[in-house]
Amino acid sequence: MAVGPDNRPELASVSGVRLGTAAAGFKDPDREDLLLVALAPGSRTAAVFTRNRLRAAPVLVAEENLATAAPRALLVNSGNANAATGQPGMEVARESCRLVAEALEVDADTVLPFSTGVIGEPLPLEPFDGALPVCVSRLREEPEAWWAAVEAIGTTDTRLKGASRTLEVAGTPVHITGIAKGSGMIHPNMATMLAFVAMDAPVADEPLRVMLETAVAESFNRISVDGDTSTNDALTLSATGQAAMAPVDSVTDPRYNELAEAVTGVCRDLALAIVRDGEGATKLLTIRVSGAAADAEAEAVADRIARSPLVKTAAYASDPNWGRLLAAAGAGAPEDLDWSRVTLHLGEVCVVRGGVRADDYTEAAGQAAMAPEEVTVHLDLGRGRGSALRWTCDFSHEYVTINAEYRT
Amino acid sequence: MAVGPDNRPELASVSGVRLGTAAAGFKDPDREDLLLVALAPGSRTAAVFTRNRLRAAPVLVAEENLATAAPRALLVNSGNANAATGQPGMEVARESCRLVAEALEVDADTVLPFSTGVIGEPLPLEPFDGALPVCVSRLREEPEAWWAAVEAIGTTDTRLKGASRTLEVAGTPVHITGIAKGSGMIHPNMATMLAFVAMDAPVADEPLRVMLETAVAESFNRISVDGDTSTNDALTLSATGQAAMAPVDSVTDPRYNELAEAVTGVCRDLALAIVRDGEGATKLLTIRVSGAAADAEAEAVADRIARSPLVKTAAYASDPNWGRLLAAAGAGAPEDLDWSRVTLHLGEVCVVRGGVRADDYTEAAGQAAMAPEEVTVHLDLGRGRGSALRWTCDFSHEYVTINAEYRT
Repeated sequence: MAVGPDNRPELASVSGVRLGTAAAGFKDPDREDLLLVALAPGSRTAAVFTRNRLRAAPVLVAEENLATAAPRALLVNSGNANAATGQPGMEVARESCRLVAEALEVDADTVLPFSTGVIGEPLPLEPFDGALPVCVSRLREEPEAWWAAVEAIGTTDTRLKGASRTLEVAGTPVHITGIAKGSGMIHPNMATMLAFVAMDAPVADEPLRVMLETAVAESFNRISVDGDTSTNDALTLSATGQAAMAPVDSVTDPRYNELAEAVTGVCRDLALAIVRDGEGATKLLTIRVSGAAADAEAEAVADRIARSPLVKTAAYASDPNWGRLLAAAGAGAPEDLDWSRVTLHLGEVCVVRGGVRADDYTEAAGQAAMAPEEVTVHLDLGRGRGSALRWTCDFSHEYVTINAEYRT
Repeated sequence: MAVGPDNRPELASVSGVRLGTAAAGFKDPDREDLLLVALAPGSRTAAVFTRNRLRAAPVLVAEENLATAAPRALLVNSGNANAATGQPGMEVARESCRLVAEALEVDADTVLPFSTGVIGEPLPLEPFDGALPVCVSRLREEPEAWWAAVEAIGTTDTRLKGASRTLEVAGTPVHITGIAKGSGMIHPNMATMLAFVAMDAPVADEPLRVMLETAVAESFNRISVDGDTSTNDALTLSATGQAAMAPVDSVTDPRYNELAEAVTGVCRDLALAIVRDGEGATKLLTIRVSGAAADAEAEAVADRIARSPLVKTAAYASDPNWGRLLAAAGAGAPEDLDWSRVTLHLGEVCVVRGGVRADDYTEAAGQAAMAPEEVTVHLDLGRGRGSALRWTCDFSHEYVTINAEYRT
């Protein structure tokens, strides 16, 4: 299941980014499961990784390499997460980078490895050896290469996730394209979240880092499928510098905001695509919390609502079960919250006013508000200007089926 | 569904505790749904309440009254939680105490009100008025009265939950009996957790409070069904002082430990009964985390494991999905954890040694370990003496059915 139509937007080529895929046979011999992304000389790349303390070998190696050199290649395999694999896993991650380095004639520390798939299974090196030449021979910039890349990094995804923006920045066309995999915020065994975004505009390291962090805060850090966090999550943002413009060297550059907004847009599209494809999802819930004393206060409340199994199962049934919403909010709310100032809306319908059921609320109105595939829940705490936003999906029978029967 | 046989242990009368029930018609007219517990003069009572910030009116009134007088009566209704009901809800909670006070000829602030059921629905006062005389006329000490009380406080429970201990303390027989309701740690709409424990031994306020807190830490605070917290949770521990012994005035009294252990035993029985009756539960999981630098560190890790939907759905399928267990642990683990010292057992089977899959581990052995209805997961962090224990249940299709179709 998934929420909404299976939109597959047009993807734009990003000058300086070439992508090649191959079937290496990590899990299923007939499936493309290896992706090589080559970045033009002069490219800059920023990245964020999972905060889970069990960090997969590729995450550790990618961080290590990022700290020493500007990346020239990204290497992504699906089917095996190379997590909880100890020192042998580290060696395979490093060796796979060396194989790419030889093939592309770049330094090994300019290659970043990424893996997704089953945890704890040793990742063999041989498949890289055999399939990398195929990836290299197929490297190309065309939009189709991006879609092939999405297919290669996917695991349990039922939808392919890509997004683009093309804009003019001070008269120069800029292309931004991103791809992602994941059908839950986290699926430690088979569907950890990976996303790769690139643009041809030249952006220096520091503004690129800020741009990525802003985009993540407003996209991937706002989504939750099951509240778990993974061993392999990673997101990169590359700027190839191939667009004909002077480099954006600082966040105060007047062109920075235009680029940052477009990058955030691409990330938001990808993040929403992940929630829409959430395991077993039949509904997309947008949780807005406003009127908090500070943003952090609103985040804590929104988090509890977005993670609550009781809220999510009620959403599955299109049940306007506002008692569960308030109780979930109460688990994250500040101690001194004055509930008599709290307002709750389901879509346009005011359900709670002054902390109690609104006089004009009817169950029928609540049911109508919960009926659509996409529902907004808006809780106002009535005490300040802090706010937060979360996107999540419902908890269905299908979710249990997928996760219970996954290995059986 | 529920885990294990439907054991209904024998309950002991507690001298000084009389219980009476009636059908007040809060939700279903044909069901006993009101419980009055009368405590003998001289009784002492300690209590703990939900930490959710959305506190139901009876919780607020009970706390208020506890602070001013030694309770002489507990009044419990099911079918309506009197939560998110504003000032009118507070007035009904207070008025219901006044009605009890008149009937029993005690002060109104010696009555503690408790409610469980649907949130946000105004709680009417009239049903108390009509049904309280019936409760009073039926007040009695017999074990059957305790079982009738369990039935009256239950909502979606599929098992009745009661436990007793009888022991000799310095030559005097002491009786401890407790009852509980709840089929999830928390069910904000219809099954918030309530428990009432009483003993005839005389214990002063301060040691009674410590006894309760210790017992809660080793019982109710160790269970989780769905990670939500409720608006109405409450647990009381009363000591009627009817047993023929001098009062236990301090925790250093040599009799204190015997009593405390028995009270903890009763609370543990009740807490385990709640997890076994967890909504849709087919498996009871005991999560042990050891080898942490401190207990708090172990608690954080155990919490993440016990709450993980991915762990719980895998358990439902009897799937030895140890990658999910490690990843859930990683979400709560300390940053400097040395994974190469981590060991994981499923039952007696060593699955992970030195942070990677144990050499002698086989999938067949893992499946055999996960097959029983009751499974112990033991994670050792290999860095200290801190430990923690959690009991939880699995996440089944039935869980989704119960919570999605609850109001439809």
